[in-house]
Amino acid sequence: MKKLGDPVEKTVGPVEKIGNNKCFGGFQQRFRYASPTLSSTTTFSIYLPPGASADAPVPVIYWLSGLTCTDENFVIKAGAQRYAAEHGVAIVAPDTSPRGDNVPGDPDGGWDIGLGAGYYVDATQEPWRQHYQMYSFIVRELPPIIEREFPVTDKKAVMGHSMGGHGALTIALKNPGAYSSVSAFAPICAPSQTARGQKALGLYLGDDPAAWQEYDTCALVAAGKNKIPLLVEQGSADDFMAERLQPEKLQQVCAQHQHPLNLRMRDGYDHSYFFVASFIGEHVAYHAGLLND
Amino acid sequence: MKKLGDPVEKTVGPVEKIGNNKCFGGFQQRFRYASPTLSSTTTFSIYLPPGASADAPVPVIYWLSGLTCTDENFVIKAGAQRYAAEHGVAIVAPDTSPRGDNVPGDPDGGWDIGLGAGYYVDATQEPWRQHYQMYSFIVRELPPIIEREFPVTDKKAVMGHSMGGHGALTIALKNPGAYSSVSAFAPICAPSQTARGQKALGLYLGDDPAAWQEYDTCALVAAGKNKIPLLVEQGSADDFMAERLQPEKLQQVCAQHQHPLNLRMRDGYDHSYFFVASFIGEHVAYHAGLLND
Repeated sequence: MKKLGDPVEKTVGPVEKIGNNKCFGGFQQRFRYASPTLSSTTTFSIYLPPGASADAPVPVIYWLSGLTCTDENFVIKAGAQRYAAEHGVAIVAPDTSPRGDNVPGDPDGGWDIGLGAGYYVDATQEPWRQHYQMYSFIVRELPPIIEREFPVTDKKAVMGHSMGGHGALTIALKNPGAYSSVSAFAPICAPSQTARGQKALGLYLGDDPAAWQEYDTCALVAAGKNKIPLLVEQGSADDFMAERLQPEKLQQVCAQHQHPLNLRMRDGYDHSYFFVASFIGEHVAYHAGLLND
Repeated sequence: MKKLGDPVEKTVGPVEKIGNNKCFGGFQQRFRYASPTLSSTTTFSIYLPPGASADAPVPVIYWLSGLTCTDENFVIKAGAQRYAAEHGVAIVAPDTSPRGDNVPGDPDGGWDIGLGAGYYVDATQEPWRQHYQMYSFIVRELPPIIEREFPVTDKKAVMGHSMGGHGALTIALKNPGAYSSVSAFAPICAPSQTARGQKALGLYLGDDPAAWQEYDTCALVAAGKNKIPLLVEQGSADDFMAERLQPEKLQQVCAQHQHPLNLRMRDGYDHSYFFVASFIGEHVAYHAGLLND
């Protein structure tokens, strides 16, 4: 099972390349390996910009995807490679949950619990506890592997979409100093205050709402441990905004606690990757500017 | 069945919107209607750039996709919307074959005949003849519908990928004056000279190779009816190049017949949409420059 104290070299087996496409002068690659944190095989994608080499390593932006996604959706749909090439940054896109025949999914066949819906938490409840350790995977396991296997520096940023926006914001808030910058597209801002979020957090973390606060952006802002500025993009025509995302709650709590927030409402945009694609260039530029400071 | 002499208004039923996403300030939309040419329902996608209106109509680039694709692959994977928005052009992406329960596919279950593999020809053989009329669909049916339904001019360009590159080149060569410009990514240049091309053309058009020449870019260049310049992008690491694409044959025939060709070999790029995405901006700019002349 999880051995967070162990050096990565001892616990992670070979990282196998399963995809490699030249793109905007760099390489869009895909890898698979056995993750000790997830007790499952996992895949991730990485874009390496032109010129990245051991002599010229580049910083990394981690992209966290939303419900139902794998490591591939962002890679195929967002068009971020052009901007990563221009700014000389790598982008890593992990999967959104553990995978495999031995990994439990939603017994009701839904899409917002279980496979593709790891919520970037460390589950404490059965039957999720053994595999659903996405928080530790993203924060502790993956970065050292990326830094060992690829020509990158240890400078990191994190961004994501929807459930992955929630992941990016909570991970950056919980780890002061670990990420130069954070941004999110249409993030779930207050899962402990929504029906869907309560269901997921309840299953993964148990019935005590106190445990949910550790994975709730609004609660973390209110707790005030880390004043990292939040860049949030939100489409005004997003069908999930009122019930699941609730950017107004984030706006309120940031105002109340003087937390720096740049919430950009985009008129007429929805929840899709067409929205992400339209503004990902601005986000990559934002992160690259701070990563290369 | 096909009634090419009829005005479009009399033969085409309602064009139903089935998708609409704001993207780079314009709109990525998807439509469905009953095509008389294909004797089937068909779907197409269109990107309308910001500012396109009845008072300010824009020219249209038609994108023809490759084997196994629908109207959606290009829309999701190529990232062309950014460039269409910048240059003020619409991009229409039709499906690659007729579709529906009544449309025959490959009896052997293959992917390079039948559904998703219309080859942009008008089939003359059974059982393909009734539905597989993609050439007439692209050339005669679709443009008047686009010009009736959307804020566009009648200025047109055509481009495509792989089988769709073959479609774009043959359609432009066969219709002097109809398209301001043409370009292709990794096109099938000489289907009548390859095993796979002969199989497809034989099934759709019959055993007489003379019929195949009408849908073969190299043969059309040799016939010399239309000197429209050809812009062709080709990745050097494309696994299909030697057996199926054969850009060297196009280079030879263009040199022999003084046909203007700009063949750009791109070192290390493969056949995927990561290749298309890397250079689609240059192609949109090329077409826009000539469309807006």
